[in-house]
Amino acid sequence: MLVNCVAYQDGRKLGDIPRSEISDYLGRPECFVWVALKDPEPAELLEMQAEFQLHELAVEDAMGGHQRPKIEEYGDSIFTVLKVPQLEGTEIELGEVDLFVGRNYVLSVRHRTNPGFKAVRERAESEPDLLKTGAGFVFYALMDNVVDRYFPLVDALEVQLEEIEERIFADESARTNIRELYALKHKLMVMRHAVEPLIEVLHKLYGGRVPAACQGVQDYFRDVSDHLLRLSTQLDGLRDMVITAMSVNLSLINMGTTDITKSLAAYAALVAVPTLIAGIYGMNFELMPELKAWWGYPFAIGMMVGIDFFLWRKFRKAGWL
Amino acid sequence: MLVNCVAYQDGRKLGDIPRSEISDYLGRPECFVWVALKDPEPAELLEMQAEFQLHELAVEDAMGGHQRPKIEEYGDSIFTVLKVPQLEGTEIELGEVDLFVGRNYVLSVRHRTNPGFKAVRERAESEPDLLKTGAGFVFYALMDNVVDRYFPLVDALEVQLEEIEERIFADESARTNIRELYALKHKLMVMRHAVEPLIEVLHKLYGGRVPAACQGVQDYFRDVSDHLLRLSTQLDGLRDMVITAMSVNLSLINMGTTDITKSLAAYAALVAVPTLIAGIYGMNFELMPELKAWWGYPFAIGMMVGIDFFLWRKFRKAGWL
Amino acid sequence: MLVNCVAYQDGRKLGDIPRSEISDYLGRPECFVWVALKDPEPAELLEMQAEFQLHELAVEDAMGGHQRPKIEEYGDSIFTVLKVPQLEGTEIELGEVDLFVGRNYVLSVRHRTNPGFKAVRERAESEPDLLKTGAGFVFYALMDNVVDRYFPLVDALEVQLEEIEERIFADESARTNIRELYALKHKLMVMRHAVEPLIEVLHKLYGGRVPAACQGVQDYFRDVSDHLLRLSTQLDGLRDMVITAMSVNLSLINMGTTDITKSLAAYAALVAVPTLIAGIYGMNFELMPELKAWWGYPFAIGMMVGIDFFLWRKFRKAGWL
Amino acid sequence: MLVNCVAYQDGRKLGDIPRSEISDYLGRPECFVWVALKDPEPAELLEMQAEFQLHELAVEDAMGGHQRPKIEEYGDSIFTVLKVPQLEGTEIELGEVDLFVGRNYVLSVRHRTNPGFKAVRERAESEPDLLKTGAGFVFYALMDNVVDRYFPLVDALEVQLEEIEERIFADESARTNIRELYALKHKLMVMRHAVEPLIEVLHKLYGGRVPAACQGVQDYFRDVSDHLLRLSTQLDGLRDMVITAMSVNLSLINMGTTDITKSLAAYAALVAVPTLIAGIYGMNFELMPELKAWWGYPFAIGMMVGIDFFLWRKFRKAGWL
Amino acid sequence: MLVNCVAYQDGRKLGDIPRSEISDYLGRPECFVWVALKDPEPAELLEMQAEFQLHELAVEDAMGGHQRPKIEEYGDSIFTVLKVPQLEGTEIELGEVDLFVGRNYVLSVRHRTNPGFKAVRERAESEPDLLKTGAGFVFYALMDNVVDRYFPLVDALEVQLEEIEERIFADESARTNIRELYALKHKLMVMRHAVEPLIEVLHKLYGGRVPAACQGVQDYFRDVSDHLLRLSTQLDGLRDMVITAMSVNLSLINMGTTDITKSLAAYAALVAVPTLIAGIYGMNFELMPELKAWWGYPFAIGMMVGIDFFLWRKFRKAGWL
Repeated sequence: MLVNCVAYQDGRKLGDIPRSEISDYLGRPECFVWVALKDPEPAELLEMQAEFQLHELAVEDAMGGHQRPKIEEYGDSIFTVLKVPQLEGTEIELGEVDLFVGRNYVLSVRHRTNPGFKAVRERAESEPDLLKTGAGFVFYALMDNVVDRYFPLVDALEVQLEEIEERIFADESARTNIRELYALKHKLMVMRHAVEPLIEVLHKLYGGRVPAACQGVQDYFRDVSDHLLRLSTQLDGLRDMVITAMSVNLSLINMGTTDITKSLAAYAALVAVPTLIAGIYGMNFELMPELKAWWGYPFAIGMMVGIDFFLWRKFRKAGWL
Repeated sequence: MLVNCVAYQDGRKLGDIPRSEISDYLGRPECFVWVALKDPEPAELLEMQAEFQLHELAVEDAMGGHQRPKIEEYGDSIFTVLKVPQLEGTEIELGEVDLFVGRNYVLSVRHRTNPGFKAVRERAESEPDLLKTGAGFVFYALMDNVVDRYFPLVDALEVQLEEIEERIFADESARTNIRELYALKHKLMVMRHAVEPLIEVLHKLYGGRVPAACQGVQDYFRDVSDHLLRLSTQLDGLRDMVITAMSVNLSLINMGTTDITKSLAAYAALVAVPTLIAGIYGMNFELMPELKAWWGYPFAIGMMVGIDFFLWRKFRKAGWL
Repeated sequence: MLVNCVAYQDGRKLGDIPRSEISDYLGRPECFVWVALKDPEPAELLEMQAEFQLHELAVEDAMGGHQRPKIEEYGDSIFTVLKVPQLEGTEIELGEVDLFVGRNYVLSVRHRTNPGFKAVRERAESEPDLLKTGAGFVFYALMDNVVDRYFPLVDALEVQLEEIEERIFADESARTNIRELYALKHKLMVMRHAVEPLIEVLHKLYGGRVPAACQGVQDYFRDVSDHLLRLSTQLDGLRDMVITAMSVNLSLINMGTTDITKSLAAYAALVAVPTLIAGIYGMNFELMPELKAWWGYPFAIGMMVGIDFFLWRKFRKAGWL
Repeated sequence: MLVNCVAYQDGRKLGDIPRSEISDYLGRPECFVWVALKDPEPAELLEMQAEFQLHELAVEDAMGGHQRPKIEEYGDSIFTVLKVPQLEGTEIELGEVDLFVGRNYVLSVRHRTNPGFKAVRERAESEPDLLKTGAGFVFYALMDNVVDRYFPLVDALEVQLEEIEERIFADESARTNIRELYALKHKLMVMRHAVEPLIEVLHKLYGGRVPAACQGVQDYFRDVSDHLLRLSTQLDGLRDMVITAMSVNLSLINMGTTDITKSLAAYAALVAVPTLIAGIYGMNFELMPELKAWWGYPFAIGMMVGIDFFLWRKFRKAGWL
Repeated sequence: MLVNCVAYQDGRKLGDIPRSEISDYLGRPECFVWVALKDPEPAELLEMQAEFQLHELAVEDAMGGHQRPKIEEYGDSIFTVLKVPQLEGTEIELGEVDLFVGRNYVLSVRHRTNPGFKAVRERAESEPDLLKTGAGFVFYALMDNVVDRYFPLVDALEVQLEEIEERIFADESARTNIRELYALKHKLMVMRHAVEPLIEVLHKLYGGRVPAACQGVQDYFRDVSDHLLRLSTQLDGLRDMVITAMSVNLSLINMGTTDITKSLAAYAALVAVPTLIAGIYGMNFELMPELKAWWGYPFAIGMMVGIDFFLWRKFRKAGWL
């Protein structure tokens, strides 16, 4: 679906243009074309390929979606795949944004991701000076917008871990904790796979030989890279703590077993000792003086209660009950 | 076994040629020879060595099979070993494809792998323009074909993990889960050993100084590399989750022990307390008024039932039963 | 909040200057301006941006705070983010110091960190020779001051680990130990995230091409880097030992379970055997000679005590009691 | 002990020569000297040092043995240390081969390793063309021979792991399994320490600037490196699976505890319930109608058997027995 | 404390010289000054700084001690920090040796380490040829001497691990084993922190651009580096096995619990079954023929003994007792 197809000159909007005239506008000097597609049909992408003269392999990748995050140069054109994480319920779904960036054009293709880049376009249009510098700044602004969407998600995962931590140390719902730690670990992995590959390739846009389209905005891409490094550090830290939390949980489960064993043993003793006493007075010896005494029965019961009270206090003190 | 031995000129098929004339066709300008062998006899390979003037060490490797995935240059010729994973029952078997690629020839040698490269040949023959560019494109197409066979297998492993996960959290068949996680880990290792070494060496074909035969198709090899990186990321993620699933399983086993201990203790209490009461009324004291009362027996039985009902409700509430 | 705004000439203090005249002083040769802000308002930073002609992205970072530690060059200016760890109760809070360093100025911006850099300024002012060499030395002195604040904190964590270790091996308060090890691990992570990124980037200031402002003081920055490496080694070692301590704790918990099981079993035996004997003499056979004998009852009791004494000594020896 | 001391000219054997004439033969053009020592006395090595003009440090290393695998250049001479693993009983013993390689000589020194290099010498002598190319090929052939001795050992370790795996999943001899996994881990470490350092240094002989003695045979050394990489991959895989097998073993031990707890509890119930019934009919109430009935005793026994049968079937179904 | 202060000319000892004349001797051509300090006062170091013209930062480091192992160039001078491990009781204490090396001087500063470098000085004085080559060789000899002191310590740790291993597999003193494994892990960490940083920096002295003072003795420093790599490999291996031993210990502890549970259950059965029989014959039914029979009592006792004997044999066979 075509979302936008706009031409700019000297940083000012010329207006929407028909798709078939894209190549004409690209030919004009000082002209800049910015097209946005959403979940496009193959035919739409093929038309774009023709208008922008995109490389076959890049277009193939953009058709299917489900690529790894990457930044690839095809001649003068840069093809970029970004992952856009979105919370759907408690699951993280990864949408995708493919960017084709040339000297004087930007084509963005969104897959399965809802918020568009209206804000980016508005900001760019409000700063004609920056827009005049060409594709590099728009490229940066789009990428920055995508990367900024990661932070609230990672923060949410951090909050989630803190909630689980609290429950772990309060000895609550160990089974749920394990399940949620496992799910959290999985989400962290999904996020890492969206962030890490980008860090690896992003230095192409600010260090060493920089593609023509990105010259003059290297500092901006370094800033994006810095944001990604911050995310990566956060994710690494979370991952580390999730693993530790799992092992803490296991330790506490094992301690729980010990605690239960102790308290069971204490209760067992409280029953077993009176049973022994009852057994003794149930013996059939003819000569058992207590049996005949009027105080025999209360004495026996008293002994049971007394010993149990004594044991109960001892267990109490030892923290077994 | 010789599968195919075809010469092409200007991208068009000249026809099958006898093996012994290969070297003649290689001498003609604009001529391209594409030979496919399957589980060859040593003699066949030695004949090929003579016709294509292949390097002794490469031919030795191709004879034995069981090599690591690798890409090696011997002068102008490139020798490539690819692993082809195939599901046999629930086991992953690694077949092997060895490719010898020169300026104007491609020799493929399949070991223990069934689907051949008919599709690749047909596609190449239908695009004479690409075929005209020579060995590089055919080399790419074969490699791409092999790498594409990895994806369904990795996806299958992903499905398998999800099945095990479900069983783990449903507390089912812990023993089977361990066994299958172990087997899964092993399969992941097999796949990694097929994928990782290739990633390491593949950049030779698109980055820096590229062998003559691969010039002009670097972007295509970069695309193959990208697919391999995607596989590698998937495999890493799976491996990470398998390890976590194992530790989750262990935690749940330990929790299971705790649960069983609890419920056993509860049942033990339900038996032990009445046994104590019975013991008390089995004592032989002469002066035990209850023993003579008509309501003695029903009272004792009632007390037993009553206490057990009370305990049962308590254990129920505490989740021990 | 503006803390200081001082101009120096030839290493000697000229005096406090109004903010609006900063750019004038920067224009004078041999003049050096050193400004310190604390938790500044955006407006203050924007004013500084104008006076010092700072890069937009660096100022944005300094406004928000919460950056990763980093050293970035924007043209002739170096932007540095340092984390300042502070103990608040038992938690480590990370404040931040942002430094803008140019040929003849240093601007420091403190966020959420209390001790300022008065000592650094005094030391610098007392050594006019060094101050004359310009921004590089002040930059080093500030950084050195920040890095020196890490050592007592890391030492405190080391002491904390030693306390936990002692408790672990004394079998005390396993639950608390786990909790504190977990918290300790978290603190170590916080410290690592403050130290590691700085090590990665610091070599920019002493190895290879060094920014103009830092030339002549490379050896000093190498010394800072060496301090950071020492911290990093200490943190790595602590982290390793914390993980090991956790697993030791788990092992000891499991051993504790075994010990308790043993001692419970011993006590159970001490009750069960007399119960059996009592049961035997509670049988109603008519022909049980002991029942009629005068020594029957004491004999039975004696047997109970005797066997229990024997068992008790055996259990004692075996270390079960 | 001197094993061989032979001079070759133009690839053909001139015959055994006395040690003291080595330096003379080395001086002749087209002459190649190949000496083999076994567990030499210091004096022998010092003589060799004089004849071949070897570097003091290399000779010192060769005297002691027990070096790490390494390849070092001393001027024109290459000093190589290889480890030769040998199975002694179930232990892996590492012998050592030290090679001194110059433009026109090879000196091999074996320490504590039995099979010599007769096969290598015979093969080399049968191919005068290769021998004519000089020391490089002999160097390769010796190294290849040593590396080939690793494969059967690694395969044996693989078989050993498979045997342990089978026993683990058959729940057999957990204690032995742990011990053997531990021993296996140790052997893998020994093998890794023999293989890994060699991989690191071997590229000196085929990539970049290659020592004079090895020029022209780079492809052969690359092949050796490839074999070592294969070994390393195999060892890594084994190591990974050993660790996993250990954790599987632990899980199964814990599950075993659960299983035993369950079956014990079942048996305990089968005894405790009849004991309760017996206890009830052992009470001394005067009014217990069953006690007087002729069917009382068989009824009680019947009830015991009946309940036990019912419980036994339930436990059976639940898999506790 | 000044230990030695000697000047050499042409490799021959000129004699002890007063500290204050060091700078004079340094000025003479062909003269070499070798000074050794032990736990020096700050004043002594400051005097040395003046005489040798050492860099302020290096002298500061040498004053405090407690540096990381490192090799730093300050102009023509090399500053080296080496750790010297010493066994004090069962603890490893790290002393420190700081070396200042220039074109024609070596200054060694020992901190908290007892054996000095007399042997090195004697060896050097006995080989005037080597001493003539200047500071590089003395530098190497000192470093080699320090590194050689590591080997017996690492070997001792290896022996210690073997002792613990034996006890683990003999199921002895699990608690002590854990404690000692933990302590061993700590010692390994201390040793690693002494060895690893040195490996990282040592290649400065033999690879690439080598400091003037070390030229001509690169091969010797490579040899030191090789020794360090050997130590590092040994330490890595030990660390790996310690971790494995810990997990083996945990597995065996858990198995021990299972074993104890089994044997307890067996003993419980041996008591519970006779108790049930006694309970049955303790029932008060009027019609229990056995009760009246003369063989009743012996029959009951016989049944108890018989069943227990049968059970005992079964448990024995199953390995529970």
